[in-house]
Amino acid sequence: MSRRDLIELGVAGALVTAAGVAHFADATPVLSFVVAAVAIALLARLVGGATEQLGSRLGSSVAGVVQSALGNLPELFIALFALHEGLIGVVQSALVGSVIANSVLVLGIAFVVGGLRHGTQSFDSSRARMIATLTVLAAAILAMPTLAHAFHAPAAAHAKSLSFICAGVLLALFFLTLPGFLARGGDAGSEPARWTLATTVVVLGTSSVGAAFVSDWFVAALRPATHTLGMSEAFAGLVVVAIAGNAVENVVGVQLAARNRPDFAISVIVNSALQVALLLTPLLVFSSLFFATTLTLVFPTLLAISLLLGAGITALIVYDGESTWEEGAILVGLYVVVAASFWWGA
Amino acid sequence: MSRRDLIELGVAGALVTAAGVAHFADATPVLSFVVAAVAIALLARLVGGATEQLGSRLGSSVAGVVQSALGNLPELFIALFALHEGLIGVVQSALVGSVIANSVLVLGIAFVVGGLRHGTQSFDSSRARMIATLTVLAAAILAMPTLAHAFHAPAAAHAKSLSFICAGVLLALFFLTLPGFLARGGDAGSEPARWTLATTVVVLGTSSVGAAFVSDWFVAALRPATHTLGMSEAFAGLVVVAIAGNAVENVVGVQLAARNRPDFAISVIVNSALQVALLLTPLLVFSSLFFATTLTLVFPTLLAISLLLGAGITALIVYDGESTWEEGAILVGLYVVVAASFWWGA
Amino acid sequence: MSRRDLIELGVAGALVTAAGVAHFADATPVLSFVVAAVAIALLARLVGGATEQLGSRLGSSVAGVVQSALGNLPELFIALFALHEGLIGVVQSALVGSVIANSVLVLGIAFVVGGLRHGTQSFDSSRARMIATLTVLAAAILAMPTLAHAFHAPAAAHAKSLSFICAGVLLALFFLTLPGFLARGGDAGSEPARWTLATTVVVLGTSSVGAAFVSDWFVAALRPATHTLGMSEAFAGLVVVAIAGNAVENVVGVQLAARNRPDFAISVIVNSALQVALLLTPLLVFSSLFFATTLTLVFPTLLAISLLLGAGITALIVYDGESTWEEGAILVGLYVVVAASFWWGA
Repeated sequence: MSRRDLIELGVAGALVTAAGVAHFADATPVLSFVVAAVAIALLARLVGGATEQLGSRLGSSVAGVVQSALGNLPELFIALFALHEGLIGVVQSALVGSVIANSVLVLGIAFVVGGLRHGTQSFDSSRARMIATLTVLAAAILAMPTLAHAFHAPAAAHAKSLSFICAGVLLALFFLTLPGFLARGGDAGSEPARWTLATTVVVLGTSSVGAAFVSDWFVAALRPATHTLGMSEAFAGLVVVAIAGNAVENVVGVQLAARNRPDFAISVIVNSALQVALLLTPLLVFSSLFFATTLTLVFPTLLAISLLLGAGITALIVYDGESTWEEGAILVGLYVVVAASFWWGA
Repeated sequence: MSRRDLIELGVAGALVTAAGVAHFADATPVLSFVVAAVAIALLARLVGGATEQLGSRLGSSVAGVVQSALGNLPELFIALFALHEGLIGVVQSALVGSVIANSVLVLGIAFVVGGLRHGTQSFDSSRARMIATLTVLAAAILAMPTLAHAFHAPAAAHAKSLSFICAGVLLALFFLTLPGFLARGGDAGSEPARWTLATTVVVLGTSSVGAAFVSDWFVAALRPATHTLGMSEAFAGLVVVAIAGNAVENVVGVQLAARNRPDFAISVIVNSALQVALLLTPLLVFSSLFFATTLTLVFPTLLAISLLLGAGITALIVYDGESTWEEGAILVGLYVVVAASFWWGA
Repeated sequence: MSRRDLIELGVAGALVTAAGVAHFADATPVLSFVVAAVAIALLARLVGGATEQLGSRLGSSVAGVVQSALGNLPELFIALFALHEGLIGVVQSALVGSVIANSVLVLGIAFVVGGLRHGTQSFDSSRARMIATLTVLAAAILAMPTLAHAFHAPAAAHAKSLSFICAGVLLALFFLTLPGFLARGGDAGSEPARWTLATTVVVLGTSSVGAAFVSDWFVAALRPATHTLGMSEAFAGLVVVAIAGNAVENVVGVQLAARNRPDFAISVIVNSALQVALLLTPLLVFSSLFFATTLTLVFPTLLAISLLLGAGITALIVYDGESTWEEGAILVGLYVVVAASFWWGA
C-alpha cells in the first residue's frame, strides 16, 4: 500500500470513530449527521478502491460484476437502514437523486473542471452515447409508475403491482444487458493491482462493515438533523445521501475530465446513474417486502419529472459531442434549482 | 401468385370464416375477439401486400399515395366501427397506441432481432433522422389538446375546438409534406410486380371487404371480451388493436432489421407511426362528426405523456446512429411498463 | 445613411405618430393596439440596426455586450409598463413566448423559406448545437418553479423564494457565460459601419425613447383590445408581444436562411431565445420588486410545458443537422396549435 492509501485509511478510521462517538455520546444530530455523511463518502471511496483492486486480479468481465455488486454497497446500506426506519421518502429521493446528481451535478462539475483546464472538450465514443441512451430508457421506465399514479386515475390504486412489474422489468434488463456491458467494458482502464489480495480483502471487508455501521448512525441522525436544519427528507435524500453515497464515481469522473479524458469521464458518471436505476432500485423494491413498509416506485411527481428532465438533458449533451465549461456551469445551475425545489418539506 | 401467397390467402380465408362463425354462433367473446384480432392482422398483411403490388405498377410516387391511403385501411375500419359503438376510448388509445407500438415495441423488437443476428447495427441515413424528427413534431401537436385540457383550465372547456384546429393542422401538414415524401420515398425498395393486375385488384378488394366485416365482429366482441379478461378499454386499444392493425409494418420492419438493413427498417417502422398521426387521426376526428359522439384529441393524460416519451426516445435512438440488442431489450421493457400502466380500467 | 434607411426611419416616425394619435385621440383599443404593435416591431428593428452600427465601431466583444443589453430594449419597456399595470400574466407569457416564438415559429419560417429556395439545408456548426443545448438547459431552469408549484405541494407555498433563486441562478449564468460567448461570437458577420457615430447615437436614442412611449400606449390599449378581440392576456403576451418584440431577430434569422446560411440563421434565432431566458427574465423578476406586484416564475403550467417541448424540439432539430421546408411547416403547425391552446381566457 502506498503512503497515500495509508493516510486515506487512517482518515477513514478516524471519521468512523468520530461518527461512532457522535452517535453514542448523543452529540447534536446535525454534527452526527455531517460526520457520518463524510465518513460514508470516504468509506464509499475505499470500497470503490478495494473493488477495483479486486477487479484487476479477476479479469475485466468478472471485475465488472463485482464492481456492479459492491460499488453501490454504501448506498444499499443506507437505503436498507432507512427502509427499516420507514423513511420511504428518503430512500426514494436518494435513488432518483443518485441519477440526477450523477447526470446533472457531477457531469456539470466535470465539464467545468475539464473545460477550464482544456478548453472545449470533444467526445464521440459510441459507448458514451449508448450509456446515455440506456439511461434515458431506464429513467423512462422508472418514471412510469409515478406518472401513472399522478396522471392516470385507474392506475393510481395499483401502485404496488405496477412498482413490482417495473422493478421486475428493470432487474431483468440488468441481467440481460450485463454480459454485453462487461464485454464492452474491458477498456475501463483498470490499473495493475497495487495491493496484495489479502490487503484487498481486508480493506474491502472492514470498509464494508464500517459502511454498514456508519449508515446505521447516519440514518439515526437523519430525521432530527433534517428537522433542525429545516430541510425536507426529500432534500436530504436527493442531495445529501445521493452525493455522499456516490462519492467514488463522482470524484473519479471529475478527475477523468480534468485529465482530458471526457469520453471515459462521461461513461463512468452516467454508468453509475444507470446502475442505480437498473440494479439498486429494483433490489430495494423487492427487499422492502421484508420490511414493514413497502417501497413503491411512486415517487413525488416532481421527482419523476426531474428524473426525466435530467436524463433527457444528459443525453442531449452527450449527443452534442462537445462540452464547454459554460455548459457545465448551466448544468450545475440546473441542479441548484432542482435541489432548491425540494428544500421545503410537507 | 406463388405458393406462399396462396397459402397465406387460404389461411386468411379460413380465419375470416372462423371469425364469422364465432361471431354469428355466439362463441365466447374472448374467442371471437382473439380470432378476429388474428384475422385482422393477416388481412392487414394482405392489404399491405396487394397495395405494394399495385404500387410496383404505378410508379413510386403514385404508389406512395396509394399506400398511405390503403395501408391503414384495417385500422380505419376498426376505428369507424368502434366510433359507431361509441367506444371513443378504444379509438383514442388505438391511435396513440399505433405510434407508441411502432416507435417503442416494434423498434425494440427490430433492434433485438437485428442485434442478435448482426451485432451492433449502424444507421446514418438522413431519411431515418428526418422521419424521427417529423414524428416528434407530430406527436407534440397531437399531445397539445390533451396537455391543454389537463394543465390549462381556460382551454379545458374548448376541447372540441382545439381538437378540430389540431386535426386541421395535422391534415394540412399531411398534404403539404406528402409530395416531398413521395419524391424522396422512391428508394422504398419496391420489388417488381409478382401478381397480375387483375389478381392484385381482386386480392385488394376482397381483403378490404373482409377487413371491414372482421373489424365489425372484432368491435362487437371487444367490450365483453375486455370485460371478461379484466383489461381496460384503453389497454385493448393501446395494445391489441394497435398491434393487430399495424401487423404489416411491424413484420416488415423486423424482417428488414433481420436482413441487416437498419436504416430502412427504422424508416418503415417510424413512418408508419407518422402516417397514423398525420393522416388517420385527423380523418377520424372529422369522420366522427357523422357519429353520435365526437372524437376529440383529449386523450387520457398519461396516454399523451407516453406518446411524447415514446416519440422523444425514438428520436434519441435514431440520432444515436447505432443500435444494439440491449437497447432493443430496454425499449421492449419500456413498452411493457407503459402497457401495464393502462391495464386497469376506471 | 442609405435611402432605404431614411425610408425606414420615416415609416417608423409616421407609425409612432399614428400610435400617439390613436392613444391620445381615444381611438378604438383594437386600432391603437395594432398600430402600436407594428410601431414597436419597427422600432425594435431600428434599435437593432443602430446597435449593430454601434457594434461595428466598438470591436466585436464590446459589441456583443451592447447588443445583449440593448437588443431586448423594446421587450423590456413593454414588460416594465405591463408590470406597472399589474399585467403579470402578459409579462410571463411574453417572456416564455419569446423563447417559443423564436425556437418554434421563427425557426419554422426560416426552414420553410430556406428549404423552398435551396432544398435541404445542412448545418453542422458546433456553435449552433451549443446554443441549442444551452437553451434547453435554460428552459429547464426556467420551467422548474412552475413544475415545482404544479407538481410538488410543499414547494407551492414558496413560489417567490424559488423564483428569486431561479432568477439569481439565471443571471449568474448569464454573466459567467458572457465572456466565452463574446469570444466565440466574433464571427457574427458584422458589417462595416455605414452610419456616422453621431447618426448612430441619435437613431439609437430616438428609437429607444420612441419605443418607451409606444410601449406605454401599447400596454394601455392591451387589456381593452384583447377583451374586444376575445383573446386571453396569455395569448396577447405569447403571440402578439413576443412576435412584435422580437421582430429584429426574426427578420434577420429568416433572411439568413433565405441566403442559405442556415448555421448562422439558427444561431441568431436560438441565441435570441437564450438571451431572453438568461438576461431579460431575471432582470424583470428583480425589477418587479419595485412594483406593487412581484413577478414570479410560476407560469401557467401549460406555458412551462410548452417551453420545455419547444426547447427540446429545437435541440432535436438542430442536432438533426439538416432542415427541409416540410420540417419547417410542421414547426409552424406546432406553433399554431400551441398558440391556439392559449387563445381562451380564464
